[in-house]
Amino acid sequence: MRVLGVDPGNAVTGFGIVDRGGELHYVTAGAIRGGTLRGPARLAAIYDSLIEVIDAHAPDAISLERSFVAVNIQSAFKLGEARAMVMLAAAHRGLELFEYTPTDVKLSIAGYGRADKRQVKEMVHRTLGASVPHDLAEDATDALAISLCHLFRAKMPRPSTARKPFPRVSRPNAIAGAKP
Amino acid sequence: MRVLGVDPGNAVTGFGIVDRGGELHYVTAGAIRGGTLRGPARLAAIYDSLIEVIDAHAPDAISLERSFVAVNIQSAFKLGEARAMVMLAAAHRGLELFEYTPTDVKLSIAGYGRADKRQVKEMVHRTLGASVPHDLAEDATDALAISLCHLFRAKMPRPSTARKPFPRVSRPNAIAGAKP
Repeated sequence: MRVLGVDPGNAVTGFGIVDRGGELHYVTAGAIRGGTLRGPARLAAIYDSLIEVIDAHAPDAISLERSFVAVNIQSAFKLGEARAMVMLAAAHRGLELFEYTPTDVKLSIAGYGRADKRQVKEMVHRTLGASVPHDLAEDATDALAISLCHLFRAKMPRPSTARKPFPRVSRPNAIAGAKP
Repeated sequence: MRVLGVDPGNAVTGFGIVDRGGELHYVTAGAIRGGTLRGPARLAAIYDSLIEVIDAHAPDAISLERSFVAVNIQSAFKLGEARAMVMLAAAHRGLELFEYTPTDVKLSIAGYGRADKRQVKEMVHRTLGASVPHDLAEDATDALAISLCHLFRAKMPRPSTARKPFPRVSRPNAIAGAKP
């Protein structure tokens, strides 16, 4: 099972693919930056890059971080636009899409729903081992955490598309098999 | 000049094409309904239908109604998702996208920024003549108004992508040439 995690954002959209065949393996990760692009061109950069990543690495599913909060209406509009690119890419490539809140992701990866960026990063590196580049962009690391969240949750009986926060769970076993 | 007007919505996305070659002509209009579709499939229905309409009728530009208000953050997310489909279709077909607020549209079409649905509908039919089907869905009629808004505004010196509400203008001359 190979999962593409995506962390869509107004300025930067992170992506990261993790493969699980017994052990967990880092496949690729990166950040899509709109740069000076605006409006339609910015969205097309996100969609086109995601399609490229999907076609190159053939994931089985997409794991999307979906926040339900936004600073204000305008940033909600923009965030909705960015994640619509992920949803459309999933539909166009026939991939199932699973959505997790930021708290879901932190719980899965760090065992603590209010874990900070540094803790999440550390757990991603610890779980996936030395193959993860150490200079990875923060959004790419977050995307790997989102991918791992689905891989951990997919083992559990409860449907992983559930939007309610999960009850706190002990750290998934998968971490035990990770390279140091 | 041929303009595709789009009124993106959570449940229904209206589209309507108007052609101006001296006079204004109705080309087509309709409503894209997600029906029971959810999430990615709903967005793909919007994007795929828009691409179909564009490829069938070759508009020169897209005129998009962009509201800056939303009832709440969740509906802003959903509206952002729907209009992202319009933006992406514009980028993928190399069409310029022009955005107008609901007030811009009402001002252009009815000469009054707080015109109601009935007045807008009446002006669309009066402007485009008998070729407009009388049983057109409301969202399709609104989309024709959005298309007309750009055709009226495009004549004016001020860039039509301006987001500030336009000062009140007298009714565009184009209406004078409309069929009764």
